[in-house]
Amino acid sequence: MANDTFSALAHPLRRAIVERLSSGPATVGEVTRDFGVSKPTISRHLKTLEEAGVVSRVIAGRNHRLALRPDTLAEASGWIESQRRRWEALFDAVGEYLEERADQA
Amino acid sequence: MANDTFSALAHPLRRAIVERLSSGPATVGEVTRDFGVSKPTISRHLKTLEEAGVVSRVIAGRNHRLALRPDTLAEASGWIESQRRRWEALFDAVGEYLEERADQA
Repeated sequence: MANDTFSALAHPLRRAIVERLSSGPATVGEVTRDFGVSKPTISRHLKTLEEAGVVSRVIAGRNHRLALRPDTLAEASGWIESQRRRWEALFDAVGEYLEERADQA
Repeated sequence: MANDTFSALAHPLRRAIVERLSSGPATVGEVTRDFGVSKPTISRHLKTLEEAGVVSRVIAGRNHRLALRPDTLAEASGWIESQRRRWEALFDAVGEYLEERADQA
């Protein structure tokens, strides 16, 4: 699990970019226009997202097309979910044990 | 979606603490011992995890017992998964469209 993925998602503008891209690929120009922030600001945040493997960029001539990388997202949510599930499973097991003990009393 | 959750998970020691706690509650002393780092270091990272709502602390006399908060984890993984699913759904829809078009050709 890379630090970078969670760091990349720890900023509201970068999460907004991810939400924008989840509804389909977009050019850098489109993303910049959508958020009404400066080009250097968008560039900096896109760089963070790309370095973390959350977003990919395909360059075709003057067009830079951005897309989500579902594999990276799946890895990040998978790590969180596996911790949560382990915790819940433990509590289910303890709950069952207590119920059985109550039945025997 | 709070920034804090992803920031909290963006550090290897804090993720290791989450992994430790996913197998059951532990005291601060136990966690400190397990990781072989200084008490101030653990305290600082625990504070970040608590402020982000990832970890809870129950104080009973001299015992500080730490536990995971599965609700916060579920919210974080849920956000990531909903982005990934939207993206995958889009690609499934485009794929079906292309297949139908190919069938008609």
